[in-house]
Amino acid sequence: MQSRRPAEPGMTVDQVQTPAIIVDLDALEDNITFLASRVAQNPGASATPHAKAHKCVEIAQRQIAAGASRVCCQNVAEVEAMVAGGIRSVLLSNEIVAEEKARRLARSAREAKIGVCVDHPLQADILSLAAQEQSVTLNVLVEIDVGHGRCGIAPGPDAVKLAQYVTGKPGLHFAGLQAYDGAAQHLRKPDQRTAAITRAASLVRETIDLLKAAELACETVAGAGTGSYENELASGVYTELQCGSYALMDADYGRNETDRPFKNSLFVLTTVISNPLPARAVCDAGLKSLTAESGLPVVRGARGVTYVKATDEHGTLELSPDATITIGDKLRLIPGHCDPTVNLHDWLVAYRGDKVEAVWPVIRGW
Amino acid sequence: MQSRRPAEPGMTVDQVQTPAIIVDLDALEDNITFLASRVAQNPGASATPHAKAHKCVEIAQRQIAAGASRVCCQNVAEVEAMVAGGIRSVLLSNEIVAEEKARRLARSAREAKIGVCVDHPLQADILSLAAQEQSVTLNVLVEIDVGHGRCGIAPGPDAVKLAQYVTGKPGLHFAGLQAYDGAAQHLRKPDQRTAAITRAASLVRETIDLLKAAELACETVAGAGTGSYENELASGVYTELQCGSYALMDADYGRNETDRPFKNSLFVLTTVISNPLPARAVCDAGLKSLTAESGLPVVRGARGVTYVKATDEHGTLELSPDATITIGDKLRLIPGHCDPTVNLHDWLVAYRGDKVEAVWPVIRGW
Repeated sequence: MQSRRPAEPGMTVDQVQTPAIIVDLDALEDNITFLASRVAQNPGASATPHAKAHKCVEIAQRQIAAGASRVCCQNVAEVEAMVAGGIRSVLLSNEIVAEEKARRLARSAREAKIGVCVDHPLQADILSLAAQEQSVTLNVLVEIDVGHGRCGIAPGPDAVKLAQYVTGKPGLHFAGLQAYDGAAQHLRKPDQRTAAITRAASLVRETIDLLKAAELACETVAGAGTGSYENELASGVYTELQCGSYALMDADYGRNETDRPFKNSLFVLTTVISNPLPARAVCDAGLKSLTAESGLPVVRGARGVTYVKATDEHGTLELSPDATITIGDKLRLIPGHCDPTVNLHDWLVAYRGDKVEAVWPVIRGW
Repeated sequence: MQSRRPAEPGMTVDQVQTPAIIVDLDALEDNITFLASRVAQNPGASATPHAKAHKCVEIAQRQIAAGASRVCCQNVAEVEAMVAGGIRSVLLSNEIVAEEKARRLARSAREAKIGVCVDHPLQADILSLAAQEQSVTLNVLVEIDVGHGRCGIAPGPDAVKLAQYVTGKPGLHFAGLQAYDGAAQHLRKPDQRTAAITRAASLVRETIDLLKAAELACETVAGAGTGSYENELASGVYTELQCGSYALMDADYGRNETDRPFKNSLFVLTTVISNPLPARAVCDAGLKSLTAESGLPVVRGARGVTYVKATDEHGTLELSPDATITIGDKLRLIPGHCDPTVNLHDWLVAYRGDKVEAVWPVIRGW
C-alpha cells in the first residue's frame, strides 16, 4: 500500500507531516564531497558507497556524480532500483541462494555491470545458471571473513579454492575479494580500528599471494565502512571503499573518536503530541519510525529535552526545568542507527535551509 | 516505491521469497475466535482489537466478523485504510495535534463512527475545528495515565476538568475514558498483572465517580491488552478491550505465564544464505525484517538452531552438532515483538497448511 507523501517541494520543514525522515542537503553534499576528495588522494582506490544506508536512488546518483565508481547494494530490489535509476555499475555485496533472485540479478546485468559475492559453491552454481540463461557475465567477489564473524569463507586456501571454482563456472568472472570488517566500524578509539584493519589487510594480502600462486588475478579488494575507511585507504590493498553511513550519519557513529567527522544530515522529524506532566512530554516518533538497537536518538537543538524511551508509536521525553518545548512543537532527532531507521520509511524529505527541495522514495522490499 | 509481492496465492510456502512475514490462518482464526468467545461471556464488554499490531484491513475485517464492536488504530493512515476497507467504527487510541491530521480524521468521520483520544485542551481545540469544518461529530475519550507513564492526564479531578472542556467544544462528544496500562502487559506473573490492573481499575472507578458528580456520563472505558485483558474483563469497569498482539503473538508475549495462551500465527520466513562454519549459518532476516528490542527471534521447528545476532540484513545462527539445516533451507522465526516487525514489511503472506491463500498489504505511513 503506497503511503502518503509527508511533504511537497516548496513547503517549509515545519510543514512536513510527522514522523518523517528529513535530510539536510548541505550536510549531505559536504559528506559526499569530503569522502570523494579523501579517496581521490589515493590512486588505486575508489569510493563505492553503500546504498543500504540511504536506500535512495537520488542520493546514489549524487555519489556517482562526485566520483564513485559504482554503488553497493545489499539486496536485489536495491540493485534493480539503482539500475532503473541509471547507475551503470552495482555490486550486490551479499550472498543469494534463491534462483528467482539470481534470475532478477542476471536480468539487471543486461543493462549494467553487476557484481555479487559468494562464500559457498552452491551460490556460484545458482548464479552461473542464471547468468547463462540471460547471456550475461556476473562479476563475482569471493567474500572472506576478516573479523566480522558473519558471512565469508576463511581467508587463505579455502578462499582460493572457491575462486578457482568460480573461475570454472560459465557466466561468472572471478573479480576479486570482498573483505568487509563490520566489527571494526564501531570501535570507538582510532588505534582499535587501526589494529583491526591491519589484521584484516594482512589476511587479504596472504589470500592475494595464494591467488597469484594459483594464477588468479585479484582485480578488486572491496570493504571498509564509515568507521574504518581511513585504515583501508592506508593499507594499500583495498581498491573499493564501501562506506554507507557517512552520507547520513547517526548518533552511534557520532560516538566514534575521529579527527575527520562527517556531519549529521539525517534527522527524524517528530511532533510533541502530549505533555502530561511538567517533566514529561511524548512525541510521535517511536519504534515504527526509528530504531534503538544502537542507542536512543539524540535530540538536536532543543535545550533540556532528552529522549528516554521508545515504544511502538511514541517517544517519551524527559524535560529538565530549563526546557521550553510545548505540545505541538516539532523536534529533530538524530537516530541511533541510520540504516534500519531509513528502512522504516517510504519517503525521504530533502531540504535546504528551511525549505523542502525534494521528496525521494525509499527503496522497499527485497 | 511499491515493493514486489513476495508470493502469490496458490504457491507453496516454500516458494515465498524471503525475508517475508507469513501468517498461519488456522492459528490466526483460533486466536480471534478464542478472544471473541472470552469477551462474549462478559456482558457489557466488547472486543475492540488493536490494528496497530497487524496493520492489515483483511485481519481487522475478520475481527469484526467475529464480533468486535470496532477496531483501534494508532495513526490516521490506519484509520483511513480501515474506513476504506468498510469498517464502520474506529477508535484512534492516540493523541494528534497536527491540523492536517485532524482534518483527515474528520473526513473519515463522514463515512464511519470515529473516536479519538485527548489528554490536553489543545488537542480538543484542533479536533473541534476540524469536526466543524467537516460537519461531523468526533467521539472523544479522555486518556488517563493509570500506570503506563506515557500519554494520559492524571486520573481524578484533572481528567474531569478536561472532560468538561471537551463537552463544551462544538463537534466533539465526550464518550468516556481511555485507560490503557501498557506497562502491565508484559509482567510475567499473573498476580503481578492482577495487581497492576486492580490499581488501574480503581483509578478508573474514582474518575467515573467524579464524572458522575459533575453530571458527565462515561459510556466507554477502553483499555487492556493481550497480557492483561482477563483482568480488565474481571474488573467490571472496562467496556472495550483493545488487545492487539493476541491475533499474531510473538516471542515476548509467549514468555508471559498464563493458562490461556494464544497461538503463534506470525512468522518471519527466512532463507539460510551462508554457512561458513559448521557451527555458524547466516539467514537473510536481520533488523530490516524483524526487530530485537523485546529479544531475538525464536527459531520454530529446526533442531539445534539458535538465532544469536541481528544485524541490518542478516541473522547469525548458532548451530549445535545435531542441527541439520544447510544453505538454501528456509526457517520460520517467531519475532520478539510483533507490532514493529509487521511494520517493517509491505506485504503479509496468509497461508493455510503449506499453501498461500492470500497476500495482504500492510498499511504504511502515518
